[in-house]
Amino acid sequence: GIPDREGQMRKGFVPSLAGIFIVILGLFFGLVQYTEVGENAMDQVHRYYTYFIDVQIMIFVGFGFLMTFMRRYSLGAVSLNYFGSALMMLEAILVIGATQQGFWNLKASKIQIDIELLIDCSFCAGSGMIAFGAIIGKASPTQLLWLLVWQVPLYALNQHLVIYTFKALDMGGTIVIHLFGAYYGLAASLVLSRRQPLHGLDHPKNSSAYLNDVFSMVGTLFLWIYWPSFNGALASVAPESLETATDAQTPGGALCVGLFAGCVSTLGFSFLTPFLDRTIGLGDTCGVHNLHGIPAILGTLVAGLASLGQHSDYLMYGTGREQLGWEVLAGVVTLAIATSGGLLGAWVVTALNLTRAED
Amino acid sequence: GIPDREGQMRKGFVPSLAGIFIVILGLFFGLVQYTEVGENAMDQVHRYYTYFIDVQIMIFVGFGFLMTFMRRYSLGAVSLNYFGSALMMLEAILVIGATQQGFWNLKASKIQIDIELLIDCSFCAGSGMIAFGAIIGKASPTQLLWLLVWQVPLYALNQHLVIYTFKALDMGGTIVIHLFGAYYGLAASLVLSRRQPLHGLDHPKNSSAYLNDVFSMVGTLFLWIYWPSFNGALASVAPESLETATDAQTPGGALCVGLFAGCVSTLGFSFLTPFLDRTIGLGDTCGVHNLHGIPAILGTLVAGLASLGQHSDYLMYGTGREQLGWEVLAGVVTLAIATSGGLLGAWVVTALNLTRAED
Amino acid sequence: GIPDREGQMRKGFVPSLAGIFIVILGLFFGLVQYTEVGENAMDQVHRYYTYFIDVQIMIFVGFGFLMTFMRRYSLGAVSLNYFGSALMMLEAILVIGATQQGFWNLKASKIQIDIELLIDCSFCAGSGMIAFGAIIGKASPTQLLWLLVWQVPLYALNQHLVIYTFKALDMGGTIVIHLFGAYYGLAASLVLSRRQPLHGLDHPKNSSAYLNDVFSMVGTLFLWIYWPSFNGALASVAPESLETATDAQTPGGALCVGLFAGCVSTLGFSFLTPFLDRTIGLGDTCGVHNLHGIPAILGTLVAGLASLGQHSDYLMYGTGREQLGWEVLAGVVTLAIATSGGLLGAWVVTALNLTRAED
Repeated sequence: GIPDREGQMRKGFVPSLAGIFIVILGLFFGLVQYTEVGENAMDQVHRYYTYFIDVQIMIFVGFGFLMTFMRRYSLGAVSLNYFGSALMMLEAILVIGATQQGFWNLKASKIQIDIELLIDCSFCAGSGMIAFGAIIGKASPTQLLWLLVWQVPLYALNQHLVIYTFKALDMGGTIVIHLFGAYYGLAASLVLSRRQPLHGLDHPKNSSAYLNDVFSMVGTLFLWIYWPSFNGALASVAPESLETATDAQTPGGALCVGLFAGCVSTLGFSFLTPFLDRTIGLGDTCGVHNLHGIPAILGTLVAGLASLGQHSDYLMYGTGREQLGWEVLAGVVTLAIATSGGLLGAWVVTALNLTRAED
Repeated sequence: GIPDREGQMRKGFVPSLAGIFIVILGLFFGLVQYTEVGENAMDQVHRYYTYFIDVQIMIFVGFGFLMTFMRRYSLGAVSLNYFGSALMMLEAILVIGATQQGFWNLKASKIQIDIELLIDCSFCAGSGMIAFGAIIGKASPTQLLWLLVWQVPLYALNQHLVIYTFKALDMGGTIVIHLFGAYYGLAASLVLSRRQPLHGLDHPKNSSAYLNDVFSMVGTLFLWIYWPSFNGALASVAPESLETATDAQTPGGALCVGLFAGCVSTLGFSFLTPFLDRTIGLGDTCGVHNLHGIPAILGTLVAGLASLGQHSDYLMYGTGREQLGWEVLAGVVTLAIATSGGLLGAWVVTALNLTRAED
Repeated sequence: GIPDREGQMRKGFVPSLAGIFIVILGLFFGLVQYTEVGENAMDQVHRYYTYFIDVQIMIFVGFGFLMTFMRRYSLGAVSLNYFGSALMMLEAILVIGATQQGFWNLKASKIQIDIELLIDCSFCAGSGMIAFGAIIGKASPTQLLWLLVWQVPLYALNQHLVIYTFKALDMGGTIVIHLFGAYYGLAASLVLSRRQPLHGLDHPKNSSAYLNDVFSMVGTLFLWIYWPSFNGALASVAPESLETATDAQTPGGALCVGLFAGCVSTLGFSFLTPFLDRTIGLGDTCGVHNLHGIPAILGTLVAGLASLGQHSDYLMYGTGREQLGWEVLAGVVTLAIATSGGLLGAWVVTALNLTRAED
């Protein structure tokens, strides 16, 4: 539903992008430098490079092709995913780099780029692409651009609160990536869906097509295969103690969790998404709510409850009960930042009428 | 040719899958645990992880997209490949794990999951997907499900006989993966093809389409590129002595073998597959016979004959003649287990009328 | 525009390929052997294998799918890319192996295959696929075959001159891969385009189609993601001193160069390619001129000018001015070899009327 593409691009997208890029470029020249290559540079490369590339495959090929199932929006999905992820990574180098390296309290005057920071920025882009899955087809490229740019500082703030202030255990980025990304996107979609005529799951443009579904299997498979790398990369950039707590699992338990999450997602696609679409007009193009949102709520609760039985060596706090409390707080704060940020962002881009779709 | 999909799923597929999954889940809880992470855990990961992921790409992306060339069965091919491979890997953890870790003679009471076992289970799934290539489009999902589940214990038995009892040299899984998988699938296809009206290469539903052929190049290329990883992974989980015998090659010899195998496959596609289809009604949707079956017979013979000239350091037996004998025996036993198992399995799933295709 | 495929194959392609392959096979038997596996074999594998596979993904999946955008030539693009790259790698083992290992001045009597040589041969194939992008759809398979075969010795000669004789700094293969490949292909295309009726950008067969464009995103993304591996692989096989000079960059400078190159490419696609097509009849199917040619000229100049400010530790010569001189010479010689080689090759394959397209 994006009419008069040429004119739209000239009026909204190109000036927005040019402005954003000039600011990023200026800040890069003023603030960013490569880390000095130390003695153990080759070891660092061997440790992180494969993880880095694997995560890149997931973000750009995985998420990109996952969203190609739409008959009229395949090319747009994979191209905007590419563009948006790259832009978010650049912005995240500035914002996450500054936050993590103590820039705000003047501990550092330059942002150091190393491969660990790039991995972290990839996760931020991943969170953006989860949100993109909720609003794809409902926002114009210009609206999407500003929504993704606005997501990065919120992501950095929330990550800092959850991981460093609340010291929540966040395996696989359940809270920081999935919970945050899903509800940011859903909140934005709630505003965007109600404002436009192309509304509802039964609109023909929302349908898929046979070969497009095959394309989306490219994304599905690469995401699924590289998932261990995603978690491995997360563990390798996370504080030490998180690595060990994953031991407290059994293969049978893992199967159960996977089975349960699969059922929740599938039932959500069949019942919850259409229900929310009919009742409150919440569009959710890729079913982000079922795939990331609800599983992330469950994951946060399960991780918190599992803390109850753990020895304090595996926790960030003295008792499981205390850990559970911070875990719940992290989830609630994430939901609050994501939804209020998404609503606000979408309200602004809609109010400014940033070349809204009009067909 | 799979009519009334909804009803079929409810009557046959879902109960079958639920039953199988409950058994697997129960056995996982009772018998399976993760290996204790030792001192050298990071070394293990560095040694095996890349191979593991590469093999996963081959099984899920490679085989999956290889079979997308069918106009009406692209999505089914890549999706059932995904589903079937994942299920076989779970079952193989139990069956191959138990067999290799001395479970049957009570040497162990728990099955230890480590990355080497997962690689081995990927090969089992690979063998299943070779078989799938022969029967795709001819079996209903329920029939396929049971045929793949039945293949795993036969694979584990045959692998144990060939590698540990007969001590055959099995470079690249020629006997255990390719020979076994191809003839298991062909035997099953012989039964399935004769029982259904959609028969013969000239049926329009068996035709390919232009863009589907491009999709199948995704599979072709990933299989081809990662082939060294497949063999590297095999060598790294195989008994030590196998690694060295591969030295006995020259680049020119390798080119010759490749050229010859390529000619055999291509001629088989042009002449043998149509001939067998016309005469004995043997359906072979992806031409598995030419790509895996005949080359595996040749490979077994060549590996056996090459033993004649080898020093005993490169062999499992004192003389090349002795090695050749065991090599041939391994091939014959594999053919026997594969074909009888495939015929029996297909006869049972057809006799039980497991929601057979009926259009 | 390739009519009567069957007859064409029998008359031109198969005899040509058979002849070429027999010569390669004979030379492999006579001259090529695997390097003795030393003590540090596993270290070598760990250092180079990932790079090697990543580059293979770029050459076969990346370049292959990049060219699938053409409505009528998707399958041909990805298949001929596969075939041509594999053939060029075999030939390059002989030609580059002989050149680098001192075969011509009788320092060696056998060509040793190791993984570093294979990486170098992949780059040669990459250069061939850049050239292929300029002539795709304009040459018959037989013409293409001979043009790619003829490119390999020119590539080896030029590489030797640029890297070892002129000691040019050639980051990312700017000169040896991109500049050479682009102008070889463009020169060949100039001859081929003028000789055939299917001429000009506005011919319907030159149009793209929606799903084909999605396919070409598969290529785009894999090329983009693995680009660091391409440069990493290059650095790891290049003489030592080249590795260090890349330090002389800032993140802001990198962004600027990327932004500038992106603008040059995009403007070239919009204005230069149609202009050259209209005026001198230069066909450039994939816009190789904008993507590789012009950026390579700029890159050569920038690398040369950047030498002016460098300490001699980062240079191959005592002063930046001297380095700049050799840099320019390397570029000019590369342009000369590439264009004269491409013109000559295309003139010969056209004059011999090697089953030229005739519709």
